[in-house]
Amino acid sequence: MDIKEYLRAGKCLIDTFLSDYFSGEIRPAVLSAAMNYSLQAGGKRIRPILCLAACEACGRNSADIVSFASALEMVHTYSLIHDDLPAMDNDDLRRGKPTNHKIYGEAIAILAGDALLTEAFSIFAATVPGVHAESQMAAVRELAAASGMKGMVAGQVQDMLSENAEPDEETLRFIHRHKTAALLSASVRIGALLAGARSGVFESLSLYGDRIGLAFQVIDDILDIVGETEVIGKPQGSDERKKKLTYPRLYGIEKSRAIAGGLIEEALQSLGYFGPEADPLRGIASYLLSRTH
Amino acid sequence: MDIKEYLRAGKCLIDTFLSDYFSGEIRPAVLSAAMNYSLQAGGKRIRPILCLAACEACGRNSADIVSFASALEMVHTYSLIHDDLPAMDNDDLRRGKPTNHKIYGEAIAILAGDALLTEAFSIFAATVPGVHAESQMAAVRELAAASGMKGMVAGQVQDMLSENAEPDEETLRFIHRHKTAALLSASVRIGALLAGARSGVFESLSLYGDRIGLAFQVIDDILDIVGETEVIGKPQGSDERKKKLTYPRLYGIEKSRAIAGGLIEEALQSLGYFGPEADPLRGIASYLLSRTH
Repeated sequence: MDIKEYLRAGKCLIDTFLSDYFSGEIRPAVLSAAMNYSLQAGGKRIRPILCLAACEACGRNSADIVSFASALEMVHTYSLIHDDLPAMDNDDLRRGKPTNHKIYGEAIAILAGDALLTEAFSIFAATVPGVHAESQMAAVRELAAASGMKGMVAGQVQDMLSENAEPDEETLRFIHRHKTAALLSASVRIGALLAGARSGVFESLSLYGDRIGLAFQVIDDILDIVGETEVIGKPQGSDERKKKLTYPRLYGIEKSRAIAGGLIEEALQSLGYFGPEADPLRGIASYLLSRTH
Repeated sequence: MDIKEYLRAGKCLIDTFLSDYFSGEIRPAVLSAAMNYSLQAGGKRIRPILCLAACEACGRNSADIVSFASALEMVHTYSLIHDDLPAMDNDDLRRGKPTNHKIYGEAIAILAGDALLTEAFSIFAATVPGVHAESQMAAVRELAAASGMKGMVAGQVQDMLSENAEPDEETLRFIHRHKTAALLSASVRIGALLAGARSGVFESLSLYGDRIGLAFQVIDDILDIVGETEVIGKPQGSDERKKKLTYPRLYGIEKSRAIAGGLIEEALQSLGYFGPEADPLRGIASYLLSRTH
C-alpha cells in the first residue's frame, strides 16, 4: 500500500472534521479563534490516524469513529499549547509558526488548551450509532489515563524537573513513556476498543501501540538533531539548547537509531497474526522509522 | 431538617473521598502535592453536595455516587487554580491561603489544574455498580458542556475581556451563567441523571439547578462587599478593586439582594411536587440566601 497516500487521506479527514466542528459561532470569538489557530497549525494527525488504522485492523469501517480520532488531536493540541507557555518550555515557535500565547496571550492560551481538553471528552461521550456506551466509557478511561496525572501530565512535570539534570536512563524512560508514548499508545487502543476488538486482538494492538509510542519519541529526538527546521517544525537542535534529556544525548545517534529500529521491529511483529487489514499500521511503523535515515 | 449539619456531613464525605483518592503514590510527588494542596484548601463542597442532594431527591441513596460528586469538586478546583494564575486574575490568596502558583510555581499550577480536570473525567467513566453506562455518558456530556468552551471557560474568557469595561447587563448575565452557574446547575443535573431520574423529575431539578446557579453568583458578589475576608476566603472588596463586572456594581446591594431572593424563590417553587426527599435541596437554597443578611 501507498502509506504516504494513506497518511494524506487520513489527515484530510481529520482536518475536515476539526474545521467543521469549530466553524459554528462560539462566544467569545477569541476563544474559538485561539483553539482553531493551534488545531490548524499543520499537525500530521498521527494520533488520529493511528486510531483509525487500529479500528480498520479490527475489520471495522473507521468512518464511524472519525470524531473520536479528531478528539485525540484536540488533546494533543491542548498539551502543545500548555507545554509552549512561558512558565513551561517557553517556546516562541511551533511547527514554524508563532505559538498560541505569542498570538493570543497567555491567559487565552491556557483557556484554549483547557477548552480543547474538555471538548475532547465531550466528543468521546457523544452518542454514535453502532458504538456501544460501554466501549465509549472504556475509551474515556483510556484517554483520561493517558492524558492525566499518571500519563502525559506526569511526563511533562518530570520533563521540567529534569532540565539541566544529569542524564539518567530510568528518568528518560519515565518521561517518554508518559509524556509522548501514553497518548500515542492510547490512540491505538481506543481505535481497537471502539471497533469492539476481541481481547486477543486488543492485546496485540496494545503491544503495537506501546512500541510505536516509545519509538516515536526516540525518532523525534533523532530528528531534532539530524532533521531540518522545515521538517520537524521547531528550530533544529532546540532540545540540545534546553539541555533536555533525550535518547541521542544519553546514547548517541547511532545507538538511538538502533533502539528505534528494535521498537519498530517489535511493533511489526505484534501484527503477525493480522492480514492485510493491518497494512496501514504496518505502513505507519515503517514510515516513522524511515524518517531517521 | 438541620441544613448546617447536612452540609457538614456532606463536606466530610467528600473530603474523605478526595483525601483517600490522592493518598497513593503519584510520581512526580510535587504534582500530587499541588493537586492536594488546592483540593484541601477548605472549600465548602457545595457542588458535590448539590449533586448528592439531587440524587437523594430522586429517592436514590447518594452513597453510590460520592465519586462523581467529588469529581465535580476537582473540576471546580482546577478552574480556581487556573483563574488565580498571574496571566488571569493574578490572585495571591484563595480562601485565606496562598494560591497554588504562589506555592508551587506557575508551571506546576497549570499542570495540577490540567490533571484535576482530566482525573474528573476518569472518575466519571469508572464502572460503578448500579449506574448505567448510558447515564454515565450523559453525565460526562453534562460535565464537559458545563466546563468547556460553551460553559465555564467561555465565562472566564468573557470575564477577563470585560474587566474595566462599562457595566452591561447582558454581558454580566453571560459571564455569570457560564462562569459559575453552568457547573452548579450541571452538578444538580448530574445527580439526577445518575439516579436515573424520569424526565419530569429531571426537568424540575434542572430548573432548580439553573436558579441556584444564578443565585449563587449574585450572593457571592454581595458577600464580596458586605462579607468579611474570613467568611468569603478572599480579601473583601477584591472584585471592586479589579473593577469586575458584578451585580452590586450594576444594581446596588439592595436590588441585588432582591434578585437573589427571587431566584431562590423560583428554585424552591420548582421543588413543589417533591416530598421530604427534596428537603436537602430546599435547605441549601434557603441557606445560601440567608448568608446575605
